[in-house]
Amino acid sequence: MAKVGIVMGSDSDMPVMSKAAAMLEKLGVDYEMTIISAHREPDVFFEYAKSAEEKGFKVIIAGAGMAAHLPGMCAAIFPMPVIGIPMHTTSLGGRDSLYSIVQMPTGIPVATVAINGGANAAILAAKILATSDDALLSRLKAYTQEMKEEVEAKDAKLKEVGYKNYTK
Amino acid sequence: MAKVGIVMGSDSDMPVMSKAAAMLEKLGVDYEMTIISAHREPDVFFEYAKSAEEKGFKVIIAGAGMAAHLPGMCAAIFPMPVIGIPMHTTSLGGRDSLYSIVQMPTGIPVATVAINGGANAAILAAKILATSDDALLSRLKAYTQEMKEEVEAKDAKLKEVGYKNYTK
Amino acid sequence: MAKVGIVMGSDSDMPVMSKAAAMLEKLGVDYEMTIISAHREPDVFFEYAKSAEEKGFKVIIAGAGMAAHLPGMCAAIFPMPVIGIPMHTTSLGGRDSLYSIVQMPTGIPVATVAINGGANAAILAAKILATSDDALLSRLKAYTQEMKEEVEAKDAKLKEVGYKNYTK
Amino acid sequence: MAKVGIVMGSDSDMPVMSKAAAMLEKLGVDYEMTIISAHREPDVFFEYAKSAEEKGFKVIIAGAGMAAHLPGMCAAIFPMPVIGIPMHTTSLGGRDSLYSIVQMPTGIPVATVAINGGANAAILAAKILATSDDALLSRLKAYTQEMKEEVEAKDAKLKEVGYKNYTK
Amino acid sequence: MAKVGIVMGSDSDMPVMSKAAAMLEKLGVDYEMTIISAHREPDVFFEYAKSAEEKGFKVIIAGAGMAAHLPGMCAAIFPMPVIGIPMHTTSLGGRDSLYSIVQMPTGIPVATVAINGGANAAILAAKILATSDDALLSRLKAYTQEMKEEVEAKDAKLKEVGYKNYTK
Amino acid sequence: MAKVGIVMGSDSDMPVMSKAAAMLEKLGVDYEMTIISAHREPDVFFEYAKSAEEKGFKVIIAGAGMAAHLPGMCAAIFPMPVIGIPMHTTSLGGRDSLYSIVQMPTGIPVATVAINGGANAAILAAKILATSDDALLSRLKAYTQEMKEEVEAKDAKLKEVGYKNYTK
Amino acid sequence: MAKVGIVMGSDSDMPVMSKAAAMLEKLGVDYEMTIISAHREPDVFFEYAKSAEEKGFKVIIAGAGMAAHLPGMCAAIFPMPVIGIPMHTTSLGGRDSLYSIVQMPTGIPVATVAINGGANAAILAAKILATSDDALLSRLKAYTQEMKEEVEAKDAKLKEVGYKNYTK
Amino acid sequence: MAKVGIVMGSDSDMPVMSKAAAMLEKLGVDYEMTIISAHREPDVFFEYAKSAEEKGFKVIIAGAGMAAHLPGMCAAIFPMPVIGIPMHTTSLGGRDSLYSIVQMPTGIPVATVAINGGANAAILAAKILATSDDALLSRLKAYTQEMKEEVEAKDAKLKEVGYKNYTK
Repeated sequence: MAKVGIVMGSDSDMPVMSKAAAMLEKLGVDYEMTIISAHREPDVFFEYAKSAEEKGFKVIIAGAGMAAHLPGMCAAIFPMPVIGIPMHTTSLGGRDSLYSIVQMPTGIPVATVAINGGANAAILAAKILATSDDALLSRLKAYTQEMKEEVEAKDAKLKEVGYKNYTK
Repeated sequence: MAKVGIVMGSDSDMPVMSKAAAMLEKLGVDYEMTIISAHREPDVFFEYAKSAEEKGFKVIIAGAGMAAHLPGMCAAIFPMPVIGIPMHTTSLGGRDSLYSIVQMPTGIPVATVAINGGANAAILAAKILATSDDALLSRLKAYTQEMKEEVEAKDAKLKEVGYKNYTK
Repeated sequence: MAKVGIVMGSDSDMPVMSKAAAMLEKLGVDYEMTIISAHREPDVFFEYAKSAEEKGFKVIIAGAGMAAHLPGMCAAIFPMPVIGIPMHTTSLGGRDSLYSIVQMPTGIPVATVAINGGANAAILAAKILATSDDALLSRLKAYTQEMKEEVEAKDAKLKEVGYKNYTK
Repeated sequence: MAKVGIVMGSDSDMPVMSKAAAMLEKLGVDYEMTIISAHREPDVFFEYAKSAEEKGFKVIIAGAGMAAHLPGMCAAIFPMPVIGIPMHTTSLGGRDSLYSIVQMPTGIPVATVAINGGANAAILAAKILATSDDALLSRLKAYTQEMKEEVEAKDAKLKEVGYKNYTK
Repeated sequence: MAKVGIVMGSDSDMPVMSKAAAMLEKLGVDYEMTIISAHREPDVFFEYAKSAEEKGFKVIIAGAGMAAHLPGMCAAIFPMPVIGIPMHTTSLGGRDSLYSIVQMPTGIPVATVAINGGANAAILAAKILATSDDALLSRLKAYTQEMKEEVEAKDAKLKEVGYKNYTK
Repeated sequence: MAKVGIVMGSDSDMPVMSKAAAMLEKLGVDYEMTIISAHREPDVFFEYAKSAEEKGFKVIIAGAGMAAHLPGMCAAIFPMPVIGIPMHTTSLGGRDSLYSIVQMPTGIPVATVAINGGANAAILAAKILATSDDALLSRLKAYTQEMKEEVEAKDAKLKEVGYKNYTK
Repeated sequence: MAKVGIVMGSDSDMPVMSKAAAMLEKLGVDYEMTIISAHREPDVFFEYAKSAEEKGFKVIIAGAGMAAHLPGMCAAIFPMPVIGIPMHTTSLGGRDSLYSIVQMPTGIPVATVAINGGANAAILAAKILATSDDALLSRLKAYTQEMKEEVEAKDAKLKEVGYKNYTK
Repeated sequence: MAKVGIVMGSDSDMPVMSKAAAMLEKLGVDYEMTIISAHREPDVFFEYAKSAEEKGFKVIIAGAGMAAHLPGMCAAIFPMPVIGIPMHTTSLGGRDSLYSIVQMPTGIPVATVAINGGANAAILAAKILATSDDALLSRLKAYTQEMKEEVEAKDAKLKEVGYKNYTK
């Protein structure tokens, strides 16, 4: 049973949202991925948000761009954590998405990650579930170790080849 | 029967929304004023937006601050014009409200006015109704004339007393 | 007889303004499209704005970029709604256009849509006319239904092919 | 045993962080509150972050202003969720704090809430814990109901006294 | 005969525009000061801008705030230099005024000074007139000398009393 | 004898500064073009600015990018008008250049034009000289007429071919 | 002999620059404090910057606001480190000062500290001198220890009195 | 023995950091270059920062992007100067990096250079070392002379070929 719902307002958000899905797979977390527009199909959206708890979701990851209302409206209905991903936008660089998601009024927080932060949204969802899942917590620690080793390998390469040959 | 619905997400928006109400009264336009939070009572909000056409509303004026979703969510449901008023905010000066309201995706426009532009929202609502109401159009033209005369009076005062005495 | 005037300050705005024209056609709204620069030919502009009501316009859609004065100056003269489209700009991303259009002083509102929001300006114009035109209101509702079905089709595709194959 | 650690970089953040503490108390969540500067006492900070899991923390709420490194450095060490509160700042309005907290690189997310969003950080922490605590989930739902009733009461007052008398 | 026209869109701009007038007086430059709103009385404005050359104006100083169209519209009509003063604004700090004035399209420059830069607009006007007025150029050089001496006096005081007593 | 000095801080500004030179040629104004860095050769710069009046310059056009000090430092030394052109920059879009040029303190104004506004700087210089040169004023008016006719031709083309064929 | 020159463009910067002086005194570093405007007295400024090395200065701390050219122009002339302090400004919050100081072109760096960061400029100057002064390095380490103890004392107070009584 | 440590948080920063290394080589300053992530390997980072003084480093140059904590955390541990290079970022143009680096709290300054200012960081490091190294100071002065001659050569070329042929 999926514990994480991934929802995006438009399929133009797919490149970013795919990173969330891929990271959840890597961390062994079941998810369900959906395209729903709070603006273009408010009834479908409302039904989705209302039934999310019943479906067993513990976390919703919602991505949206520009006047990004999807994460905040999910948070208005779903009682557990909603993670918001602000999409990069051509004109305002994603500030519009970021402000529309992070600046929620008292009572209805959205856990906001970086602009286009698809992978980080998934990691945050896993960290949330790991507060009551020791096996997942271990997998998260293994991922952290993996990241560390990647940086160490890069530094070792730099030490070996020097900066002039590093990117060749 | 009220043709304009005025809705705000919080009673902290009252000073700005009051200007909208006062201007509609001045222009002889009936309205109904409501406090509804799309975030804190999504069911009440949905019911409001869905029944607005049936109640006879032709225009909705929605004011909201920070991650301001109320105008856009009204526009997702109500089929006629929604006018959005971005509220000034302490930290971001109202940019958060402005971007959350004006940067709507294709298909769901919100007619956005200036930050804290309560009076202008009402004038815009009246202009919309005046597209099919000649008497209202005349009242709008009279208001325009009034504004012109106010500026002329100020200029006459300046010419008379000079700038050094103008603000005394 | 055209009920909507579309006016742009420069033919560099054509790609955005064309979307407004195309959407009005789709929604069955007559329009007249013009290139007039308030800065480069103020007399021509004044004549245009002053004669707009007489020509039968009910709404003007004005697009402009940078120090975008065209929408606001239209609103200073034309007594019914003026919709402003802020153009994206290279250096400031369209913030200059947006602020020059939306931050109008009390008395002269411009109904501002998103940066480069050509289609939304047309939909807003149609919504304004639909306050007194039931047939147009029906066409707008049909368009809304169409948008909903498009999103549903995308979600169905995602459910069928999965995110890894979605964009292939 | 405290499940939530509240940490701030400076006691000038106390007014905002107090709201987090008060909200956790209201929701019946145990917490431990600490002042630690990652910049002024990096050793103390490292020890705090490293021992947090062992102490039984499931979530850390970290508030900081300006070049706000405390939340991100917590997230680099603590394996479960870190919630970041960007403090309002005089010169940049809190944009510096917000960007320093939300724009974390891949692998180390911080769940960011609004500028000065002390209460929301606590609610988000409670929502995280509620993914495995049904009693807490019920208290959160009761809080949501309470918020709804507050807005309804305000609307009822507006309907009764009118906007002119509302703020008297 | 006045060589400089000072025009403001609203008498709320008077504190800033007064500094322009006072500086012109100090530098011995005749001016005429007027309140005209391009938005609230476009006909009056057009007449003003068209007759400015005939009246003998060589420079227009125009101050305006928010969506500040007055300087740019003056520059569209008046063939000699227009100096624009962007007014400080509560919500956007004057960025809206600045962008609306400085970002003029090719062909219609506005000589823009700092936000609230009333005195500097006057000095710039004097510098423009001084390109063909040696006596005025001398007065400008004397003013420059005066500024230099003021700073030197402040430095002398600092050297004498020390920073701890400087502002006592 | 050149009446206008064109100076740029780096030859990377040449594409923008060339437009200033070309426009001055079109308007029949003599100029002298120079590359001088206030930062990389302060002595050369000081000598340039100090000798400018003696060489017969009436206006200096200075272009610079990033922390753009060249226009302001010219204005600190040269007693007649300095026109500043803020260069577009990759990271900040030219805001850094714009603020560094336009936000001058009281006493030392720089007549600032739009970001990358090379042609407008030249037109402004010509307008300044035209305050005492009727022949130049006539050429400026002819240029204004030319611009008007260009827009009229574009509008005529639009009327003839329609928007769908306009850009083909 | 003073090793640090403190220079400010205006005595309105004194409250911030005083913090730099006070911190240098605390750290036992000799300094000389001066008011010099690069804009209002360029000759005095040039002489100051050129003679700084000869006077024995090893570091210059320069504070300035708005179009802040003083630090960058010092760095163009003085061959050792220049530390820039951007002043807070009413309209742009100090972004204008910050960009004018930090965005220096290749070849002429300014070591920029936070907006209004007077004390930090002094600490940075001391750190620079401490690269060849072990006694000063020891005093800096003692200051660091002092800061650590201050935070620890605050945390101890919080632990003792609780957050509700902390600010009483 | 290396006197300068160059450290970057990710090898994606290599193009900018390479310019720092190349400039140090040009100026004859020994350095050691390392890739260390304060976020992905906090233990490795802590060890690096703590041992830096012992290794003989006098200056650390730290580059980082987005929520850029590396320079500030270095400055919290290393007692001598830390120079921070904010990396350009796609969405926010490097404002996030800049604010995260420059806006340090009192007590822990970071000497911040321009966005992507790799070469300038190296020059600043050399200037710092030159406060106690006359030979290096001479090399810096020679570099300054070289820059001056480059600009003079460009100006000579412009004078010779004219702006139309300059970039051919």
